[in-house]
Amino acid sequence: MLLTDTLLDFFLETRKHTETLCVPLEIEDYVVQPVVDVSPPKWHLGHSTWFFEEFILKPYAKGYQIFDDDFAFVFNSYYETVGKRVIRSDRGNLSRPSVEKVYDYRRYVTKAIKILFEENQSPQLYSLLEIGIHHEKQHQELLLTDIKYILGNNPLLPVYSAHLEEHKTEVHTKEWIPIEEGIYEIGHNTNDFCYDNELGRHKVYLHPYQISNVLTTNSEYLEFIEAGGYKKFNLWHAEGWDWVNQNTISAPLYWHKIDGEWYQYTLNGLQKVDLNAPLTHISYFEAFAFAQFKGCRLPTEFEWEVAQECFPWGNRWEWTESAYLPYPNYQKADGALGEYNGKFMVNQKVLRGGSVATSKKHTRPTYRNFFHPQLRWQFTGLRLAK
Amino acid sequence: MLLTDTLLDFFLETRKHTETLCVPLEIEDYVVQPVVDVSPPKWHLGHSTWFFEEFILKPYAKGYQIFDDDFAFVFNSYYETVGKRVIRSDRGNLSRPSVEKVYDYRRYVTKAIKILFEENQSPQLYSLLEIGIHHEKQHQELLLTDIKYILGNNPLLPVYSAHLEEHKTEVHTKEWIPIEEGIYEIGHNTNDFCYDNELGRHKVYLHPYQISNVLTTNSEYLEFIEAGGYKKFNLWHAEGWDWVNQNTISAPLYWHKIDGEWYQYTLNGLQKVDLNAPLTHISYFEAFAFAQFKGCRLPTEFEWEVAQECFPWGNRWEWTESAYLPYPNYQKADGALGEYNGKFMVNQKVLRGGSVATSKKHTRPTYRNFFHPQLRWQFTGLRLAK
Amino acid sequence: MLLTDTLLDFFLETRKHTETLCVPLEIEDYVVQPVVDVSPPKWHLGHSTWFFEEFILKPYAKGYQIFDDDFAFVFNSYYETVGKRVIRSDRGNLSRPSVEKVYDYRRYVTKAIKILFEENQSPQLYSLLEIGIHHEKQHQELLLTDIKYILGNNPLLPVYSAHLEEHKTEVHTKEWIPIEEGIYEIGHNTNDFCYDNELGRHKVYLHPYQISNVLTTNSEYLEFIEAGGYKKFNLWHAEGWDWVNQNTISAPLYWHKIDGEWYQYTLNGLQKVDLNAPLTHISYFEAFAFAQFKGCRLPTEFEWEVAQECFPWGNRWEWTESAYLPYPNYQKADGALGEYNGKFMVNQKVLRGGSVATSKKHTRPTYRNFFHPQLRWQFTGLRLAK
Amino acid sequence: MLLTDTLLDFFLETRKHTETLCVPLEIEDYVVQPVVDVSPPKWHLGHSTWFFEEFILKPYAKGYQIFDDDFAFVFNSYYETVGKRVIRSDRGNLSRPSVEKVYDYRRYVTKAIKILFEENQSPQLYSLLEIGIHHEKQHQELLLTDIKYILGNNPLLPVYSAHLEEHKTEVHTKEWIPIEEGIYEIGHNTNDFCYDNELGRHKVYLHPYQISNVLTTNSEYLEFIEAGGYKKFNLWHAEGWDWVNQNTISAPLYWHKIDGEWYQYTLNGLQKVDLNAPLTHISYFEAFAFAQFKGCRLPTEFEWEVAQECFPWGNRWEWTESAYLPYPNYQKADGALGEYNGKFMVNQKVLRGGSVATSKKHTRPTYRNFFHPQLRWQFTGLRLAK
Repeated sequence: MLLTDTLLDFFLETRKHTETLCVPLEIEDYVVQPVVDVSPPKWHLGHSTWFFEEFILKPYAKGYQIFDDDFAFVFNSYYETVGKRVIRSDRGNLSRPSVEKVYDYRRYVTKAIKILFEENQSPQLYSLLEIGIHHEKQHQELLLTDIKYILGNNPLLPVYSAHLEEHKTEVHTKEWIPIEEGIYEIGHNTNDFCYDNELGRHKVYLHPYQISNVLTTNSEYLEFIEAGGYKKFNLWHAEGWDWVNQNTISAPLYWHKIDGEWYQYTLNGLQKVDLNAPLTHISYFEAFAFAQFKGCRLPTEFEWEVAQECFPWGNRWEWTESAYLPYPNYQKADGALGEYNGKFMVNQKVLRGGSVATSKKHTRPTYRNFFHPQLRWQFTGLRLAK
Repeated sequence: MLLTDTLLDFFLETRKHTETLCVPLEIEDYVVQPVVDVSPPKWHLGHSTWFFEEFILKPYAKGYQIFDDDFAFVFNSYYETVGKRVIRSDRGNLSRPSVEKVYDYRRYVTKAIKILFEENQSPQLYSLLEIGIHHEKQHQELLLTDIKYILGNNPLLPVYSAHLEEHKTEVHTKEWIPIEEGIYEIGHNTNDFCYDNELGRHKVYLHPYQISNVLTTNSEYLEFIEAGGYKKFNLWHAEGWDWVNQNTISAPLYWHKIDGEWYQYTLNGLQKVDLNAPLTHISYFEAFAFAQFKGCRLPTEFEWEVAQECFPWGNRWEWTESAYLPYPNYQKADGALGEYNGKFMVNQKVLRGGSVATSKKHTRPTYRNFFHPQLRWQFTGLRLAK
Repeated sequence: MLLTDTLLDFFLETRKHTETLCVPLEIEDYVVQPVVDVSPPKWHLGHSTWFFEEFILKPYAKGYQIFDDDFAFVFNSYYETVGKRVIRSDRGNLSRPSVEKVYDYRRYVTKAIKILFEENQSPQLYSLLEIGIHHEKQHQELLLTDIKYILGNNPLLPVYSAHLEEHKTEVHTKEWIPIEEGIYEIGHNTNDFCYDNELGRHKVYLHPYQISNVLTTNSEYLEFIEAGGYKKFNLWHAEGWDWVNQNTISAPLYWHKIDGEWYQYTLNGLQKVDLNAPLTHISYFEAFAFAQFKGCRLPTEFEWEVAQECFPWGNRWEWTESAYLPYPNYQKADGALGEYNGKFMVNQKVLRGGSVATSKKHTRPTYRNFFHPQLRWQFTGLRLAK
Repeated sequence: MLLTDTLLDFFLETRKHTETLCVPLEIEDYVVQPVVDVSPPKWHLGHSTWFFEEFILKPYAKGYQIFDDDFAFVFNSYYETVGKRVIRSDRGNLSRPSVEKVYDYRRYVTKAIKILFEENQSPQLYSLLEIGIHHEKQHQELLLTDIKYILGNNPLLPVYSAHLEEHKTEVHTKEWIPIEEGIYEIGHNTNDFCYDNELGRHKVYLHPYQISNVLTTNSEYLEFIEAGGYKKFNLWHAEGWDWVNQNTISAPLYWHKIDGEWYQYTLNGLQKVDLNAPLTHISYFEAFAFAQFKGCRLPTEFEWEVAQECFPWGNRWEWTESAYLPYPNYQKADGALGEYNGKFMVNQKVLRGGSVATSKKHTRPTYRNFFHPQLRWQFTGLRLAK
């Protein structure tokens, strides 16, 4: 648990980092929404700000003047408790408020939070501020992956930045790490921040298993492609097979075959596929089919959590075989914040780890990310188990 | 494990029972498919027969003459291994082969299997016959629930039978059964038949919990309806809430409010809702929302399996909180039969128990049924845990 | 105008002919609806009967007992005036009422009409009976083309009848018939029956044109196919081009290329394409593209009506270039019968002529048939003009 | 026919006017596409420029350097002849090229055209330049109506301009203008510019009719609304009735009922509905239903063209009863320009007149505009006939 001063610094640094991520953007890049899962950068800027206004300033800052009454409608994401909102698929249809106005909104709210916290440092506010910061960090990751999607689906394939390194090659020799059978404890158990879905620290029984010390690489996945992996129905779930065929999927997202060679759109622009780099932008369906192809499987989230001290991680969100479900004794938070996690606990798979897009201090060994099995615009990857 | 003679009797009895279920039908009832999840009765009759022809007679019965070359195309369900097939949503568009022809096909294949087994009783054939029988029993349940859907969605609401009792009231006093924390063994471990998804007998650690000795009744669910359960978003998963609103769901399937009173279509025709009978025809989304409303939860499939000796079950398939996933060391069967279970292990919830539509000897304590969370045309119900 | 006795005979003969058309059917064939534009034969039988009950017996036959109160709901087609109805796409989901019950209904209503007309021969009843008969004749054509679709989309490709001759080859030498410029009269002007959309007899000015004395043949259309007609966007309307590509259309409906040869499903079963027979089962989009390919055009409905005495017609409904619009001074009938024609006068093209499926005495030189431009399950064809 | 110098002035003035229309926009407004029929302003700027580059500079300007090879892909609209293009519904997903880059493109092409025409004044270039100018004028109208849609669907309802007058009230007393029966000439017959669809000057025979000298007003339409016009199926085409119900239409586009009063979004912002102003933003379906309600009808395009000298017009595009079809002897232009009009001649209705969004010199008595019957984002209106 951080001191309040430190928390305020953490807050200011987080607010600043969101804006730093947007420095390479043109105004136009802030606005568009090429698919429903991607939100316009402008929306992320506004929504993370609205979160502080709605859950902290409105209830706790005496005499606070709402910046603009219409913004709650525009920047609410899914909090039914809080009222009506622009439907998700319409976010990219809104040219107003302008980017400039959204930056004004950010400054206004950042300042108001700063003033409030210099006056009031109650535990409740502390805790709300902390969740607001982590909420914004979560959106930083989405912001970056959404920007990649916006640029990577533009026929001009523009460069975002020459400096961000997407592909950190793992230099370790590939090994299977054996884990013994037994009862293990799962879930968060320190004083540091965590989400409600990590709580309900509990025991699980694990049978003996082995887990790879490295992520699957592009080179290994290319073998799968070349062996006809996308054409062999028996490697796939029935729903995965339908997904492949309905969308004519034949490679990870952002891969392009040009004159017989594989290229990959990255935040640095279009590049040859780096064979030694960890595979990314695959769906759970592809991760599962690849594991079948190798005669292996994906680890469960429990196996991953127990083993994670034995290998490096953090460059790719790693698909697990676990469905996203509540831990025993899971308690969802009261009020609107209770809508944060629990209501998504159906039809999604858990991912563990983190990625090159994850903000500093945002992930941890017990962090549970979750997505629908067909999604792949995050920096997803996979690690085999058996 | 049954003796071969007994198995043949079991086979003949199973074949006969399928046809007995169809006695009340008009020819027209055999043909239609009002929604994609429901198959025409004619299709069930043909498909369960094709299964024996394809997996037993074609490979093992020397000199066997295929009944009709086109039937593999018409009656294959989803076995990609075996070749092309009529797409699922087109099953109700086929008037031919006629019902009479399908009965000829049944007789022809039943007789051929009988002859084959009088000659050849190898363990491999034994095992294939056994799976074929259980496959047909599984289709008997679908047949009956599909018939209910076909008749129950007809504006004339015809009666299927006056004798089938859908609503067996449980007479026990409601109690919470406490189960102690500890390591338990899960999965099939006798010589009797089971599916591959029940195997991989393994240990799980369960925290202490309580489970209801009775199923939730219509009367309890009516309280939920009357308290506005279908209007309170915070009881629902986000996807459940969308499902309720997009489909304007306000009661279980087959419930009709007529002049202020609740009626329910049953296989005996339209009747007043029996308040003491166990609730049925609800989706997982509704089961979950009801449990939230009661401040309880659904059991996991492991909690259910461990506790099942302590309560009566078998009238309703019971939704669990568990996602349908492979057990540790799950091995799918070779060849086409390997497509039976494993490829559906994503985006589905496990149901345990059985139902009034389940054929004799078809279910068992380790049996894992599974459906998508929005489906409710099976005789689904729920049992609370906490 | 027929005498009343003759009209009654005409009625009885029409009722009988509908049933004759169904003689080759299995019960199962009466039930299915493979696409939304096709209605189950059972529905045609019931709907044409309901029309007499609703518009004649209910208002005019004193003491008439409605056969079944639910049938209005089941067999109303689109008459908003008359109340609620089964939505069109659900017609094939209804197994009940049974075919036998529908035949009972037919007998009951036929008899009641007979009795009523033996007593009451007022002009109003005369006129309603006449429209009811023509309505049933219109459904006879749909019945036969719907049956063809039901059987022709079944993978078993069953034969309907060995005797019905679909392809009457035209033996005339191909010639262009020249028509002089001038003012012509269009529309119905005898005492015989016609629909409201043929009235508003009026003048049109026609510029000089030429029209073919024969229908386009399969042989000519094959040239279009082989010249890549389905791949040349500049021959097509933009909407036609989208239709071709979205539905991967490459030949008329019911054409199959088997081992390099063209076959065509007919009511006599699968047969080699008869090169000299008039082309059929094409959409307006295809008719238009073919005309472009030939450097010609389709005639307008006025050009067709003026020229029709100069060539034989009646085997194919012929697409015209005319949109289906009201004639000057068009008056729609009062009440529900006013819903017969006028409300469809948008987004449809006019067809003139008749077809091998058209019942005797049903078509005439002024008859205006109309369909959406992409439809082709009728016996549609084309005649060039320039 | 203008002199070449004058044509160049006309070109430069047209180019400038497009940009003037965009002066009130924020950068963000240039990018979005809230529905598929609306294109982003940036796209209009680029597309009208690409038209000059593709059809004039590439073939005729020796040594011309294409501005950017990717722009043909981005800014082609529907010209299949010219190659692949961004699908229409994706136009709003493209943040790049930036607005600034598109303005560079405009300047570059405008300059190149100017240089070319100072050197080469051949009749062919003259004619291509003329069509390019009229093409851009057509896009000016779309640009303004698309801007209105972008702003009018934003929850903030921003003002575009305080000065543009949308609602020019007609001060004439309402009268029926009688037109005599006879043969009239239709179509373009001067040396001035026109589109190919206006040619094929030809004769039509008109029966006597009367046409209103004024457009229908908001006040008259309000009577229709208040009399339940949107609830009376018998006023509507079947497809119109479906459209009303599926989209829950109950007023013209941009009308809002706030606290019991009708408001209308205009380019000047939200305002009370001006009762005396001509009705606008209605579909053909609504125009037709209103005419039915009044016991009148819409004029045909021929009736309109013959009568147009007798009344003022130009503030609203006026729906006619005519389908958009080729005139007798219609010849479409060669090459890509032949895709301009002819390929849309199905499923659309003709509009005559012009609107407050129509650029100067862009419309004329023979001009045929056309849209699908459900569209209403143009400044559409109606004039009654009988």
